[in-house]
Amino acid sequence: MLDSAIIGGGPAGISAAINLKLLGKTFVWFGGASKKVERAELIKNYVGFPAVAGGSLAKAFKEHTESMGIDGVDAVVTGVYQTDGYFTLLAQDASYEARTVILCTGVETSKPIEGEEEFLGRGVSYCATCDGFLYKGKKIAVLCTDKRFEHEAEFLAGLSEKAYVIPLYKGYEIKSDKAEIIVKKPVSVTGDMRVRALNFKDASLEVDGLFILRGSVSPATLLRGLKTEDGHIFVNRDLSTNIAGVFAAGDCTGRPYQYAKSVGEGNVAAHSVVEFLK
Amino acid sequence: MLDSAIIGGGPAGISAAINLKLLGKTFVWFGGASKKVERAELIKNYVGFPAVAGGSLAKAFKEHTESMGIDGVDAVVTGVYQTDGYFTLLAQDASYEARTVILCTGVETSKPIEGEEEFLGRGVSYCATCDGFLYKGKKIAVLCTDKRFEHEAEFLAGLSEKAYVIPLYKGYEIKSDKAEIIVKKPVSVTGDMRVRALNFKDASLEVDGLFILRGSVSPATLLRGLKTEDGHIFVNRDLSTNIAGVFAAGDCTGRPYQYAKSVGEGNVAAHSVVEFLK
Repeated sequence: MLDSAIIGGGPAGISAAINLKLLGKTFVWFGGASKKVERAELIKNYVGFPAVAGGSLAKAFKEHTESMGIDGVDAVVTGVYQTDGYFTLLAQDASYEARTVILCTGVETSKPIEGEEEFLGRGVSYCATCDGFLYKGKKIAVLCTDKRFEHEAEFLAGLSEKAYVIPLYKGYEIKSDKAEIIVKKPVSVTGDMRVRALNFKDASLEVDGLFILRGSVSPATLLRGLKTEDGHIFVNRDLSTNIAGVFAAGDCTGRPYQYAKSVGEGNVAAHSVVEFLK
Repeated sequence: MLDSAIIGGGPAGISAAINLKLLGKTFVWFGGASKKVERAELIKNYVGFPAVAGGSLAKAFKEHTESMGIDGVDAVVTGVYQTDGYFTLLAQDASYEARTVILCTGVETSKPIEGEEEFLGRGVSYCATCDGFLYKGKKIAVLCTDKRFEHEAEFLAGLSEKAYVIPLYKGYEIKSDKAEIIVKKPVSVTGDMRVRALNFKDASLEVDGLFILRGSVSPATLLRGLKTEDGHIFVNRDLSTNIAGVFAAGDCTGRPYQYAKSVGEGNVAAHSVVEFLK
């Protein structure tokens, strides 16, 4: 049983990981793949680095975690389940148990599509390796939001009878005989007891399932009962949420969306976890 | 009329100043003299600087403000007065007007002595240059908390008939014919309508006034009506206090006392000031 699980590889997650490590706690850090800092052009208000390029700041952050022997797990967490005094986290093909969770999931860059939450577990899935085999020989749609999920889309297409793959970015390269690429934005998923169709503005595809491959799952979907306010996770001053043992830090807790705020909140959340574990 | 006044030169004040400047606001920054970061031995959790000495981090912070042309004013703010929609700040021999205030006053290293708040303005003063002349030819006590206030103690002694100077640190060098050095810790100030005596555990000095020379005045004394909670300034998530237009950031808002938290809060407070000024 780990002391904590940190979800998110941005500045808040990095800060939480560094602090938990220094505070002598055990944890898993789902922090492999955030590219947000790296992509920033120029940052002028992260104190100590006057006018720094995103790439340089990301490098300094990475050197900090590496110098402390902190490794991130590069997997998308698709569900967090509360059991008797601890949490079980599903991350693609592995599961983890931790006494606390720190959500550093950032802000949603893509909104959920209509029907997504309603049909979650009834044809909508976020996890190719968890649920892919359920759709062997069936017709599926795969919403691919980033190039780095293309191998999952190909894996799903390979299992299916037919897969409509919908890339939501430019420069896609999806190689599968069973995949039909559709370059359109879906607006809703509909069905009865289960998913039956993925709908576009002017067309509809009959499918048995819909996989949505995103870098992160929205916190409220990830963790049932989590209180949100104006699209952000509700937190107290100590960064505790409405669920005992669950904390949040960074952009997901609200504006301003700033590196210094995120790093500061990761720091506070880690200290609050230590208080909570006492 | 300035947009804001930032009180405090630690990480929260530095961060607030950098952000207000980038956000195009006018402000005065009472941030000349904080030595807290500089004195830290080794800091391991300020993200981006793995295991850095306090002196090096302080240097990086200073280079950041200097590179942006931000100058701090090295004066102790002794009072903040709310007038019609703005604040007047007294800082030794100058006064400033600002529409908002960001309190980054850190945590008290010295507790107020008994009677200090009761006799403030009736014999107790924090400001040698403001009130010194009122005690020309009188008997005073001067509580000097730091070497850097010795010239003020000497100035006060020079004006007085007799000055009992009480240094609360080691290695004092106070040069004045009229000063009698007393190396004891005072416990209370007493009087009737005005200050009459400064008291020690086993002795008492008859005086007409008491000057307390400290690096900072406690926020609740500085600003009447400011809500505190467990010895810290009460703040909301956006770092607003109970007084409209007054914000707080850093150690003064509560634990954990951490650089990253302070820098993050300075960042948030600056953004909240901008929202408030809209």
